[in-house]
Amino acid sequence: MSGHLVTAGETMALIAAVQVGSLASNRDMRLSVAGAETNVAIGVARLGGRATWISRLGNDGFGELIQRELRAERVEALVQIDTGRPTGLMIKERPNAMRTHVRYYRSGSAASAMTAFDVDSETIAAADVLHVTGITPALGPGPASAVQHAVDIARQHGTRVSVDLNYRSSLWSREDAGPVLKHLVERADAVFAGPEEAALVVPDGHHEELARSLSGLGPDQVILKLGGDGAYALVDGQPHTLAALSVPVVDTVGAGDAFVAGYLAEWMAAEPPAQRLRTAVTAGAFACTALGDWEGLPTREDLRTLGSPDSVQR
Amino acid sequence: MSGHLVTAGETMALIAAVQVGSLASNRDMRLSVAGAETNVAIGVARLGGRATWISRLGNDGFGELIQRELRAERVEALVQIDTGRPTGLMIKERPNAMRTHVRYYRSGSAASAMTAFDVDSETIAAADVLHVTGITPALGPGPASAVQHAVDIARQHGTRVSVDLNYRSSLWSREDAGPVLKHLVERADAVFAGPEEAALVVPDGHHEELARSLSGLGPDQVILKLGGDGAYALVDGQPHTLAALSVPVVDTVGAGDAFVAGYLAEWMAAEPPAQRLRTAVTAGAFACTALGDWEGLPTREDLRTLGSPDSVQR
Amino acid sequence: MSGHLVTAGETMALIAAVQVGSLASNRDMRLSVAGAETNVAIGVARLGGRATWISRLGNDGFGELIQRELRAERVEALVQIDTGRPTGLMIKERPNAMRTHVRYYRSGSAASAMTAFDVDSETIAAADVLHVTGITPALGPGPASAVQHAVDIARQHGTRVSVDLNYRSSLWSREDAGPVLKHLVERADAVFAGPEEAALVVPDGHHEELARSLSGLGPDQVILKLGGDGAYALVDGQPHTLAALSVPVVDTVGAGDAFVAGYLAEWMAAEPPAQRLRTAVTAGAFACTALGDWEGLPTREDLRTLGSPDSVQR
Amino acid sequence: MSGHLVTAGETMALIAAVQVGSLASNRDMRLSVAGAETNVAIGVARLGGRATWISRLGNDGFGELIQRELRAERVEALVQIDTGRPTGLMIKERPNAMRTHVRYYRSGSAASAMTAFDVDSETIAAADVLHVTGITPALGPGPASAVQHAVDIARQHGTRVSVDLNYRSSLWSREDAGPVLKHLVERADAVFAGPEEAALVVPDGHHEELARSLSGLGPDQVILKLGGDGAYALVDGQPHTLAALSVPVVDTVGAGDAFVAGYLAEWMAAEPPAQRLRTAVTAGAFACTALGDWEGLPTREDLRTLGSPDSVQR
Amino acid sequence: MSGHLVTAGETMALIAAVQVGSLASNRDMRLSVAGAETNVAIGVARLGGRATWISRLGNDGFGELIQRELRAERVEALVQIDTGRPTGLMIKERPNAMRTHVRYYRSGSAASAMTAFDVDSETIAAADVLHVTGITPALGPGPASAVQHAVDIARQHGTRVSVDLNYRSSLWSREDAGPVLKHLVERADAVFAGPEEAALVVPDGHHEELARSLSGLGPDQVILKLGGDGAYALVDGQPHTLAALSVPVVDTVGAGDAFVAGYLAEWMAAEPPAQRLRTAVTAGAFACTALGDWEGLPTREDLRTLGSPDSVQR
Amino acid sequence: MSGHLVTAGETMALIAAVQVGSLASNRDMRLSVAGAETNVAIGVARLGGRATWISRLGNDGFGELIQRELRAERVEALVQIDTGRPTGLMIKERPNAMRTHVRYYRSGSAASAMTAFDVDSETIAAADVLHVTGITPALGPGPASAVQHAVDIARQHGTRVSVDLNYRSSLWSREDAGPVLKHLVERADAVFAGPEEAALVVPDGHHEELARSLSGLGPDQVILKLGGDGAYALVDGQPHTLAALSVPVVDTVGAGDAFVAGYLAEWMAAEPPAQRLRTAVTAGAFACTALGDWEGLPTREDLRTLGSPDSVQR
Ligand SMILES: Nc1ncnc2c1ncn2[C@@H]1O[C@H](COP(=O)(O)OP(=O)(O)O)[C@@H](O)[C@H]1O
Ligand SMILES: Nc1ncnc2c1ncn2[C@@H]1O[C@H](COP(=O)(O)OP(=O)(O)O)[C@@H](O)[C@H]1O
Ligand SMILES: Nc1ncnc2c1ncn2[C@@H]1O[C@H](COP(=O)(O)OP(=O)(O)O)[C@@H](O)[C@H]1O
Ligand SMILES: Nc1ncnc2c1ncn2[C@@H]1O[C@H](COP(=O)(O)OP(=O)(O)O)[C@@H](O)[C@H]1O
Ligand SMILES: Nc1ncnc2c1ncn2[C@@H]1O[C@H](COP(=O)(O)OP(=O)(O)O)[C@@H](O)[C@H]1O
Ligand SMILES: Nc1ncnc2c1ncn2[C@@H]1O[C@H](COP(=O)(O)OP(=O)(O)O)[C@@H](O)[C@H]1O
Repeated sequence: MSGHLVTAGETMALIAAVQVGSLASNRDMRLSVAGAETNVAIGVARLGGRATWISRLGNDGFGELIQRELRAERVEALVQIDTGRPTGLMIKERPNAMRTHVRYYRSGSAASAMTAFDVDSETIAAADVLHVTGITPALGPGPASAVQHAVDIARQHGTRVSVDLNYRSSLWSREDAGPVLKHLVERADAVFAGPEEAALVVPDGHHEELARSLSGLGPDQVILKLGGDGAYALVDGQPHTLAALSVPVVDTVGAGDAFVAGYLAEWMAAEPPAQRLRTAVTAGAFACTALGDWEGLPTREDLRTLGSPDSVQR
Repeated sequence: MSGHLVTAGETMALIAAVQVGSLASNRDMRLSVAGAETNVAIGVARLGGRATWISRLGNDGFGELIQRELRAERVEALVQIDTGRPTGLMIKERPNAMRTHVRYYRSGSAASAMTAFDVDSETIAAADVLHVTGITPALGPGPASAVQHAVDIARQHGTRVSVDLNYRSSLWSREDAGPVLKHLVERADAVFAGPEEAALVVPDGHHEELARSLSGLGPDQVILKLGGDGAYALVDGQPHTLAALSVPVVDTVGAGDAFVAGYLAEWMAAEPPAQRLRTAVTAGAFACTALGDWEGLPTREDLRTLGSPDSVQR
Repeated sequence: MSGHLVTAGETMALIAAVQVGSLASNRDMRLSVAGAETNVAIGVARLGGRATWISRLGNDGFGELIQRELRAERVEALVQIDTGRPTGLMIKERPNAMRTHVRYYRSGSAASAMTAFDVDSETIAAADVLHVTGITPALGPGPASAVQHAVDIARQHGTRVSVDLNYRSSLWSREDAGPVLKHLVERADAVFAGPEEAALVVPDGHHEELARSLSGLGPDQVILKLGGDGAYALVDGQPHTLAALSVPVVDTVGAGDAFVAGYLAEWMAAEPPAQRLRTAVTAGAFACTALGDWEGLPTREDLRTLGSPDSVQR
Repeated sequence: MSGHLVTAGETMALIAAVQVGSLASNRDMRLSVAGAETNVAIGVARLGGRATWISRLGNDGFGELIQRELRAERVEALVQIDTGRPTGLMIKERPNAMRTHVRYYRSGSAASAMTAFDVDSETIAAADVLHVTGITPALGPGPASAVQHAVDIARQHGTRVSVDLNYRSSLWSREDAGPVLKHLVERADAVFAGPEEAALVVPDGHHEELARSLSGLGPDQVILKLGGDGAYALVDGQPHTLAALSVPVVDTVGAGDAFVAGYLAEWMAAEPPAQRLRTAVTAGAFACTALGDWEGLPTREDLRTLGSPDSVQR
Repeated sequence: MSGHLVTAGETMALIAAVQVGSLASNRDMRLSVAGAETNVAIGVARLGGRATWISRLGNDGFGELIQRELRAERVEALVQIDTGRPTGLMIKERPNAMRTHVRYYRSGSAASAMTAFDVDSETIAAADVLHVTGITPALGPGPASAVQHAVDIARQHGTRVSVDLNYRSSLWSREDAGPVLKHLVERADAVFAGPEEAALVVPDGHHEELARSLSGLGPDQVILKLGGDGAYALVDGQPHTLAALSVPVVDTVGAGDAFVAGYLAEWMAAEPPAQRLRTAVTAGAFACTALGDWEGLPTREDLRTLGSPDSVQR
Repeated sequence: MSGHLVTAGETMALIAAVQVGSLASNRDMRLSVAGAETNVAIGVARLGGRATWISRLGNDGFGELIQRELRAERVEALVQIDTGRPTGLMIKERPNAMRTHVRYYRSGSAASAMTAFDVDSETIAAADVLHVTGITPALGPGPASAVQHAVDIARQHGTRVSVDLNYRSSLWSREDAGPVLKHLVERADAVFAGPEEAALVVPDGHHEELARSLSGLGPDQVILKLGGDGAYALVDGQPHTLAALSVPVVDTVGAGDAFVAGYLAEWMAAEPPAQRLRTAVTAGAFACTALGDWEGLPTREDLRTLGSPDSVQR
């Protein structure tokens, strides 16, 4: 059995500048969709798992596009259509080759009006893992309560809880985020974080210290995402480190979600920690080799071909 | 003397789908900027007038782009930068060749936080014409009071007042809009409206009835924009009709603003009503022959060349 | 109840030149997918029906893309993956504004190896309508037997049979096609054809003659598609004519499939003939207003908005 | 035998704005090559004739591109490479859907330094037709003498002389052009002109008057190109009129050269005047149905398929 | 004297995805043409040699495009038009930055129906070098016999024979390929191979072993292409090694053909082995610095400028 | 006070190939504007200084575009419109990843007809710095006298003189350039040069020797631009060296102008030499991280954010 993941959060239309350069001289943009939770859900579905996403969308072309893409990716969408609010929107711009700016048009969005009532208890109760992120509580009191409620249900029914801290500085301050994220960590089974994010919840320190402190708050599994340096994990008290794979990097945005998807797919498939990390790191690497937040996520077959010698197949 | 126009309102980034078709299969989009008031201001500036625009913008790439375009078009921008709110955004999509959908991401925008305090009294007092639209009062109480305050100042200092009703059904209901627009009409010298818009304020009827009713509320000049049918005007009680020019139509959005710009430029230049209308109708036609809400607006030289026989110049 | 349509046939990757002009100076192309049967299936699904498609695909990127698009469009694909044969491919080119050339790379394709064994009897038996086209029998003996077998099953189980003649001159001659198409007509409940296609099966004549002759072979419903002239139908002996809707035409390819989808969706929903034709003609018109063979197919909501007065919605 | 055409003149790189609209908001451009004489030469070669072009090019990428395209089109290029002068360049812009602006960067170009010494006497002497235009004499004294010298050689050796007046107002005034063009007409066997161009040389009048006056100067064949109205010809004293074909018009630039190519190809093939005009008018129509000055020129096979009923071939 | 190369094989239309990424989110493609043998022929022609290519093409736009490009590149095409079979087609896709997939639509193509009768004996007898590849025998019995026949003729008339093993795993198995390639090697004067390809014919080993074994089968010249590691050659028993040039790599596909073209051009020009290799390695490097299988091939002038200090010329 | 820079010279339309590769297979081009002097002026304006540019432009779309961009960038343009001459044009092509070709269509341009009379004495007299380049004297006697006259005025009125040698080999020979550039150096306060350019004026040597020799001719400040190696400066006899910043390089064209702008902005702001160089080197680095000759020039805020840790801001 490959497992069933449920997640909840906001997914938005994503309009990204096609070229590097100032907006004044680079007017070509490209539409896609993105959201940390659906990125993970798509990643799990591509690896053969079942994935369900709970949210709200506007009654507009962007909402339809999101649902269409999720159907295409085999993610089940349990979605309320909010006829009075628009689907959230994200603008991605690269003024020069050193910088990526992501700006949100999500205040007042359909998903920001999500509440605990949107959370489908039966689905969560029947799932293997509930995955939530630290983005959703920052969207407003409704979404915050939805996340807490989902975690409550999961814990009551033995559904394992996975949390990615995913701190977004444009949504809330480090001071506001800290206690909320801590509360999530305390009730999670698995926690994913970058070192800076970990330091919002526990005292700063080197990787092992951060992981041990986080684990001390509750979760058996703490996995630190280290970008180009790979990952450090503490699973049932055992440390694991894995270097990143060396790949031609096209776009690193989404690597973290790919990593989480890889880890969770293997965890649900009852693979041992080393294998979870291996798939996580490989999925993270794959995500870096194509444009887009989730478009480069690997399938099982992709995982197999990575490392085959000849890059041109004909 | 060519006259000085002052206007106030919201201008947004405009991201438009490049191709006709559903968003799912047409992901290419293009960034520009648009706003009814700056469309008019640009139109006046291209025709040789002076134009000033009062508003708020976010501290972001879109805000910079708007300011850059206005400088390029010689429109003076009296703008507050609101570091806590984003610049408004507009999405334009053509699901098929029969439909254009315009959706706004402007609730909570910088310009929606505009207030009467943003209105620069001296600039308005010294100007020849103040031009406002029925869009701004729909953006919130702050913008509504800004418009009313601007009109008050204009009337106190003998600056003529121009109003384009510009009803936007996605911003407010016909019921909410009616009395507000009526109040604006009562205090205007010149009013522009489509027949349906006019019927928000006065009893429905044929063109002359609508115009007479509107004029009865105060304004000396009532100009009905009739799309491909041209225009009907009642100026100092005298009726004028002018057919639209026959041109290859590329994009009709913005024709109304072009028309208003043409009319106001000639009014400020003390041209007689027939000439005002002629330039209005020509400017409206020009705007239809190029993509974009204002990009096709004519210069004085363009007005001269329209009607020259040979379309290929070499 | 909205009904369940089953269909079988080949769907291909479609690579179309972006611009009108010779290939030498127009190298930009665009990838999508198309096939007469899935065009109809998508059309039915968009109108709220259930649609299932039976076929074979290659184990390649094109096959994945087809499956992805069908999931996105809610069409169920009962598909065998043929690891030894490629997914079929179609090239569309417009050397000038007067001509469209469609060329096929489908000989030896996965779907051309389809056989009667691919046909899922239970699915057909349980469906409301089986829809097949005159293209599939032209793909080879396997596909021909698959179509005949599917029709056999349908007739045995009381599933109604719909046939669109869809003659393709590049696949077979008029002589070869005639008897095969005739055999299909004889066993169909509803037949769709253009006048030239009808004349492959029955003696040429004016619309009523053609329809009466076709109906004389068996089917209760004969519907002639007349392009810009609309449609002529003979249903239970009663003639119906309906003019085409006047719309801005962007691409007429696919109008016929849209028409069929509209008709079948209403037939399955037990709507009377006049309503079937009305939806058929409207769907055909919609398909003409956007690029692509199926991308412009309408939803129920689209049908409602057609005819609403204002084309710019904001 | 299909005949051998020789021509001489300037061909340039052509950079055209991709979209209709002001340069400020339409920065995408596309590179091709164009020149009235090579347009005609390509047209003749596509219709099965042999064509040779005499000119100068710069030692640069544009010059290479021109030679490459001519090889591709089977036009022989007798070209001197001028290492000290650039290949000429032409900019085409469509500020709106009503206007096309063509501007030249050809003063000081390689071809403007052409002289009588560049003219290959043997080639002209052995050819069936020499075709020259009224553009070349406007490029400077060298090109003017080259044209005159070419005509001298042709007349001495019995090579028939074809002249297209092709008046370009940006190169010289009507006053300067008149006598030069008249001198060309006097020594031509066939003359092509628009009515306005004809009036540079003979007194203005209706079509027949213009043609008779031109013919009175020497040429047996005078063909007036009338754009969307077709053509009027006076051949050996006999009048011929032919309406334009009704086609979907994409770009009319180059229609005149296509017309000339069609006429000359048939003249060289000894076809009677009616057939010359028929091919001329068809070639002109074809040229209008694709972008580019020569890209839409027809082959013999294209001429055959025009008029076939079904525009979608599959 | 610069020499005359004859080659025979299949050239196809090549449609390549413009962007790296999955087909689902990267629909833009670009059309060009490619084939190992014409790549070499173009390379030789650009270096000043004469090159002739023997093959079959379909009666379609792709076949015309191929002929047009070859004319443009000064390669003579001795081509039969097969009205019943299409021109072959190749799809190139880069799902991520690590992988290039090339898939063929060439089974049943015009060139796959090539036979020994297509081979023009006189042309081969009069040429300096016949170049064939290991691709053609894999296309079917007809092409295989065409290659063998061409080699026979060459050997009879003293035309030197060059073979590039060019193993394509999607066309045949290593087992099937081995003996056929061995037979070609035995009758060649010069053999080009990658180390893995060499090991299809002779026992695996290090570069010198592979080269000596291959040379033992007959050819005086064995040249191993080593990608980014340059080349190893054994010419008349003498070993030569040359490192690759360090260049900014854009697309390595086609480097091997460029290398072969460089080598053969110098061999035909009677340059010594070291110079042959130098030009080969330089041509291979050039090919890597531009997109496309042959578009980056150098001219003699390009060879001269490589190594000039300033990369921006103005 | 931030200072006022005046500069004079030619600015052109710039049409650049979008892709790397030969023109034959890369026809997409993109229009912008560029000129060494306005690049510097824009750089100074972005850093908060005032900048004025003196020149001539044609009465055409390119001239309008240049003026529009300069308004957008807050550079004042004192421009004569020359109705008889075109605006200059520059073509940028990258035949492969190793080479950039820049070719000019500026002979006979409006700016090449500039004379000493175009120079506005009052503006120069009132400015803080006059900046000129070695390009302008190469455009013809008029521009040469304009530059000399501008320098005369500056020296008379105590306006400091900055010179960038900017040798362009396509405009004049090293022999012609040497004495003219030397004369400029002798009368400058600050001189910018690459080492090769310096060697046109003084004996070749290592960086310090070159700088000391140049300084010996008059200027207190000599700054050598060393590309990827940073810069060497001799200011008031004191040597300064600064390494280049390590950035992802997209396009190095324009780095020199950015460097000069950074230096001059700080010099006018009375910053010490070390700070001038720091800003110069940072501006040069910024210019390399975006496409275009000036588009990547930094603002003061950009200077601040460089070096901030997180490259993705959200
Ligand atoms: N440049 C890279 N090269 C290879 N793998 C990477 C790279 N960047 C990230 N990854 C992989 O993706 C994982 C998550 O990336 P990271 O940047 O840490 O997450 P986030 O996107 O959440 O900031 C890393 O642990 C690593 O395994
Ligand atoms: N299709 C058209 N052809 C020519 N002129 C037009 C066309 N549409 C609009 N115009 C001109 O522009 C003016 C304003 O257009 P209209 O559509 O009435 O305004 P709005 O954009 O405010 O709805 C019209 O009065 C007419 O003069
Ligand atoms: N130009 C058009 N305008 C409006 N409707 C059209 C047009 N062309 C086709 N249709 C509609 O689509 C239907 C099917 O189109 P048709 O061209 O007859 O089918 P096919 O694509 O099978 O040849 C027509 O019956 C008509 O209702
Ligand atoms: N709109 C059109 N429709 C059909 N044929 C046209 C059209 N315009 C031109 N042609 C054909 O091309 C010929 C030459 O076109 P014309 O515009 O007169 O030449 P020129 O390009 O030299 O001005 C015409 O005589 C006519 O036959
Ligand atoms: N990355 C590279 N950099 C420089 N030169 C290269 C590179 N790759 C290939 N080459 C040159 O091209 C030649 C052929 O390339 P190779 O990849 O071995 O051939 P093939 O395309 O047949 O596999 C090499 O011998 C080398 O000289
Ligand atoms: N590759 C690079 N990386 C970082 N900075 C650079 C690079 N190239 C140039 N620069 C900066 O820009 C400055 C000017 O560049 P340079 O190439 O010397 O000028 P120019 O464009 O006049 O030839 C250099 O002094 C350096 O500070």
